[in-house]
Amino acid sequence: MRIGIDLGGTNIAAGLVDEQMNILCKMSLPTQSERPYQAIVEDMVTLVKGLVNMGNISLSDVRQVGIGCPGTPKKETGDILFSNNLHWHNVPLLAALAEKLPSGIHWKLDNDANCAALGEVLAGAARGSRYAIMITLGTGVGGGIVLDGQIYDGVNHAGAEIGHMVIVSGGELCTCGRKGCLESYASATALIRMACEAAREHPESMLASQETLNGLVIFQAAEAGDSAAKAVIQQYLFYVAEGITNVVNIFQPEVIVIGGGICAQGEKILQPIRAQVAQAVFCKQVSVPKMVTATLGNDAGIIGAAFL
Amino acid sequence: MRIGIDLGGTNIAAGLVDEQMNILCKMSLPTQSERPYQAIVEDMVTLVKGLVNMGNISLSDVRQVGIGCPGTPKKETGDILFSNNLHWHNVPLLAALAEKLPSGIHWKLDNDANCAALGEVLAGAARGSRYAIMITLGTGVGGGIVLDGQIYDGVNHAGAEIGHMVIVSGGELCTCGRKGCLESYASATALIRMACEAAREHPESMLASQETLNGLVIFQAAEAGDSAAKAVIQQYLFYVAEGITNVVNIFQPEVIVIGGGICAQGEKILQPIRAQVAQAVFCKQVSVPKMVTATLGNDAGIIGAAFL
Repeated sequence: MRIGIDLGGTNIAAGLVDEQMNILCKMSLPTQSERPYQAIVEDMVTLVKGLVNMGNISLSDVRQVGIGCPGTPKKETGDILFSNNLHWHNVPLLAALAEKLPSGIHWKLDNDANCAALGEVLAGAARGSRYAIMITLGTGVGGGIVLDGQIYDGVNHAGAEIGHMVIVSGGELCTCGRKGCLESYASATALIRMACEAAREHPESMLASQETLNGLVIFQAAEAGDSAAKAVIQQYLFYVAEGITNVVNIFQPEVIVIGGGICAQGEKILQPIRAQVAQAVFCKQVSVPKMVTATLGNDAGIIGAAFL
Repeated sequence: MRIGIDLGGTNIAAGLVDEQMNILCKMSLPTQSERPYQAIVEDMVTLVKGLVNMGNISLSDVRQVGIGCPGTPKKETGDILFSNNLHWHNVPLLAALAEKLPSGIHWKLDNDANCAALGEVLAGAARGSRYAIMITLGTGVGGGIVLDGQIYDGVNHAGAEIGHMVIVSGGELCTCGRKGCLESYASATALIRMACEAAREHPESMLASQETLNGLVIFQAAEAGDSAAKAVIQQYLFYVAEGITNVVNIFQPEVIVIGGGICAQGEKILQPIRAQVAQAVFCKQVSVPKMVTATLGNDAGIIGAAFL
């Protein structure tokens, strides 16, 4: 038995996972990230104990407790160096957890996007592959790199920031301070920005009559035939495919996994992305990776963390 | 003893390399890439035999003959799938070589940019590191990725094409067919294009009075105080650093090695690049890789090939 914890900005989700990578039971608590980290650690302890009770096992039956955390972990010490989402800076996460639970637990720590990528490779959309890149299109654009079955995140564990690859030099300001990052063009946030601009330019569009614009509404308007929405989606997917083509030219993986809320659109986004990438990649004559949407949703982070 | 062969568009350079990675002797022949590949293979055989004679050893003393070749190799078979520079398509390079030389030779094949990166890691500017990315600013922009001491080039050996990462979406047309690749902004060719544009706009500039513009002349004009040339260099190095920042955000390696003719400028290019990258990278609080220029020049490819 293993436990995976996906520590998100909104929820702390934890699952008891068997060696066949099935989640046997799940529990979650709200993160309330404004609290001191000690309170969050307390909740994580509650979740671990709760899962053990629910699974009717003892803590000594748990082979590993893995944690996926937003930000940059220092794996050697179990500290979180920085986490913008949690407003953490040098938090001794594993040490604080270890203090509250019996010794002998095998702790592991990694970035949440990395855990999700590993989960999809082990048990989800990229199952069976050893070289996969996951790109998560959410509030930001997350990246997870799995090479030879292992998470790759650089010598300081701060790598795999595929969202912070500039694709439009001098373009939109990114949260990281650069201008024109993939995140500023391929995140759900960017899609909504593009739709807002289109709504202003096309007051006759369905986009202009919406009270709030979100990814789903924009895709629905496009499907209903709204030409402004269709143009926005087309432009948006162009940028997504531009980023994916860059990633393919660098990594030539077996699989590209697209995650995040927008991946619910499935083939509707995959078909234009596949067409553009296949046409644009360098050495397209050799081979082009599979492009798929994530299948595990939030479970990917739990499974990946459990098998770090 | 090992032999490394750097098969370039202009010359076939070969060296006899000892186990301490010293090149004991070198020989080269013009590539004349318009010839059928069999003629080039013949010259490679001549070079191998010549080196063995010069080194006063026998072929059985040679532990490995490695070849760095532009294009995409199929390492399993020793074929070159594609090479634009050599106009090759499905050339059975190692089979053709093996036919002409006694059996028992241990052949290895890889892309030339990868060999150069490995050479710099083993014996050059990135010596002692295990995670390094080399970016070669030449006619094009080449990439070489060394992770955990090994060349990484993707499942089809066509990866590491860092030059074909779009940084200016919709920008200058690249040789690969995309618009706005790093190669179109950071190659020596791009620098010359920018200087030609500046010469037209600033007929009073030293750039406008040159008969032919090349990288050296442009840097010399900037150093002599020519403001148009200074602006061109500044713009050019901005794009180089933009690409390097992307690479750092993705790989977080120990070292970035800049190769190609322009790396002769040394600290003059490194200082502005280091300043921009240090300011722009994601998680700059954690660490920023060393940025250095290549030290082995053309020998990098020979040494890397010998130690593939």
